[in-house]
Amino acid sequence: MHRVKVRVVEDALDANNTIASANRADFDREGVTVLNLMSAPGAGKTTLLENVLPGLPGVRPGVLEGDVAGSLDADRLADRHIPVTQLNTDQGFGGECHLDANMVRSALPALPLADIDLLVIENVGNLVCPAEFRVGEDARAMVSSVTEGEDKPLKYPLMFRACELVIVNKVDLLEHLDWDREKFEYHLDGVHPGVPRLYVSAKTGEGLDEVRDWLVKLATRAGAPA
Amino acid sequence: MHRVKVRVVEDALDANNTIASANRADFDREGVTVLNLMSAPGAGKTTLLENVLPGLPGVRPGVLEGDVAGSLDADRLADRHIPVTQLNTDQGFGGECHLDANMVRSALPALPLADIDLLVIENVGNLVCPAEFRVGEDARAMVSSVTEGEDKPLKYPLMFRACELVIVNKVDLLEHLDWDREKFEYHLDGVHPGVPRLYVSAKTGEGLDEVRDWLVKLATRAGAPA
Repeated sequence: MHRVKVRVVEDALDANNTIASANRADFDREGVTVLNLMSAPGAGKTTLLENVLPGLPGVRPGVLEGDVAGSLDADRLADRHIPVTQLNTDQGFGGECHLDANMVRSALPALPLADIDLLVIENVGNLVCPAEFRVGEDARAMVSSVTEGEDKPLKYPLMFRACELVIVNKVDLLEHLDWDREKFEYHLDGVHPGVPRLYVSAKTGEGLDEVRDWLVKLATRAGAPA
Repeated sequence: MHRVKVRVVEDALDANNTIASANRADFDREGVTVLNLMSAPGAGKTTLLENVLPGLPGVRPGVLEGDVAGSLDADRLADRHIPVTQLNTDQGFGGECHLDANMVRSALPALPLADIDLLVIENVGNLVCPAEFRVGEDARAMVSSVTEGEDKPLKYPLMFRACELVIVNKVDLLEHLDWDREKFEYHLDGVHPGVPRLYVSAKTGEGLDEVRDWLVKLATRAGAPA
């Protein structure tokens, strides 16, 4: 029973990777750099994007907004004049807990790729499955809020291992929490030694310049001819 | 393609429900009331259990601790002399994002059911899939932290709809947040009208007596002969 289950999942991941490669080829053809942005529910992905994407120097942003249901986040980003396309995962079942390459592929015709340099795919809020499904991205980043506690790298190791940047959000609340930065970094380096980490408050703006720098570098590097 | 996918999932849920019924029969035979406790990562489930389970009047508690990896939470509960069994979901793959009935069934032999009146199954931190998989529980409760924002019922409707109690945690941080209780309740009643809700701080102890009362009533009601 157990072996059968694993085999089915591996087949599903093979199919996903094939479609992810097709997405990637389409993005490359249009010169679009793609960031897969992941986090637990309520870690602050949308607030971060609202505050770093407008006015990103030399980079035209766009967002593909993944949610189980609703379009609240997409509406917030549209209010900031960021091109945004909504992708809901609740078709026909209780809702998928992650975006996969085929869902992203189904959204491609709705994306104005010619007008976008950096496409951020805001994944469904979940610290497990999004890390297992590539969607055709150039890089992956995650947001980890200090209110979630410093043990999360140990409890969700694949997510922290799968990303190229960890954005530690809500540092404006640190003075009201027992959150221990040293302990968090010890756990983080235990699962992903040396991964870049930026401490920010999407609400107050602290640290957001470094996030903008990282995004501009990503878009420039990946957009350059090979 | 889409229809095939839905059919596979439904078959998986059928099998899950069959095993959940078997679990439930075993729990009933031993006179154990079972609560499936769910939340996003870092919402405070373990801190809540640490503080409400010891000394619960007339009810002997036990915990089945579900995590992708690690045993940090189980260790914390064992420190409080609460009988706890660890169940990790990372066997053979990146990790399951929820507990299912078969995983719980595999843990039954390790649980001292004869010494437990109320078994709390602490699910994997995730607001999507745990709501789709019954494990043999009598009731389901979820913890929603105010730091996650007031829009979560709209974004994860199945989770808020699937539970009999919503425990709103971290109210000690309210004075530092823009969280709007009226807006949260409006969204909550939109997806699950009138569901009981308790406002608590697992950290300061505020509101925990009401959680204890709810747990005692649950254990007493469900434990009574039909």
